[in-house]
Amino acid sequence: MMVLITYDVETATPEGRRRLRRIAKHCLNYGQRVQNSVFECLVDPTQFKQLKQKLETEMDPAKDSLRYYLLGANWKKRVEHVGAKEGYDPEGVLLL
Amino acid sequence: MMVLITYDVETATPEGRRRLRRIAKHCLNYGQRVQNSVFECLVDPTQFKQLKQKLETEMDPAKDSLRYYLLGANWKKRVEHVGAKEGYDPEGVLLL
Repeated sequence: MMVLITYDVETATPEGRRRLRRIAKHCLNYGQRVQNSVFECLVDPTQFKQLKQKLETEMDPAKDSLRYYLLGANWKKRVEHVGAKEGYDPEGVLLL
Repeated sequence: MMVLITYDVETATPEGRRRLRRIAKHCLNYGQRVQNSVFECLVDPTQFKQLKQKLETEMDPAKDSLRYYLLGANWKKRVEHVGAKEGYDPEGVLLL
């Protein structure tokens, strides 16, 4: 199933940027980065559970917000993109 | 239907922050801000079309990325939240 993961973190601090890099690294094992802090991950239920555990270990729950949207199997017809950066380059310059 | 809107913009610049404020203002007519640049909007097809037109006028398509995820009617069971800021305060401090 496709899971959309949105991560809200303070990227003005080095700690926040480091958490975002780590969150991104885990998400990229299962999918792609579509915006600076938005990831589309294709996982089965076991992988999803493992991924959640990793992300929730990396995040700072007092400061950051992590949301999961289960898009199901027919997810492609549910997504529309406008503007720059379709297919976000995870190795690109991190927006500050 | 519920539409999730994710907006990727360079908030290090005053222009980017202004575009985010304007995007947020339009989205808040139809729903709530759940993260700094993530909005959940409840719209019918006509409203969705109008909202898209407004957002795509405000955005800078060369710099910003705007994604729409159609979550359908049973959207509540598709969403999970972890960490801070459930129910983002749109009048709160803008994260830079």
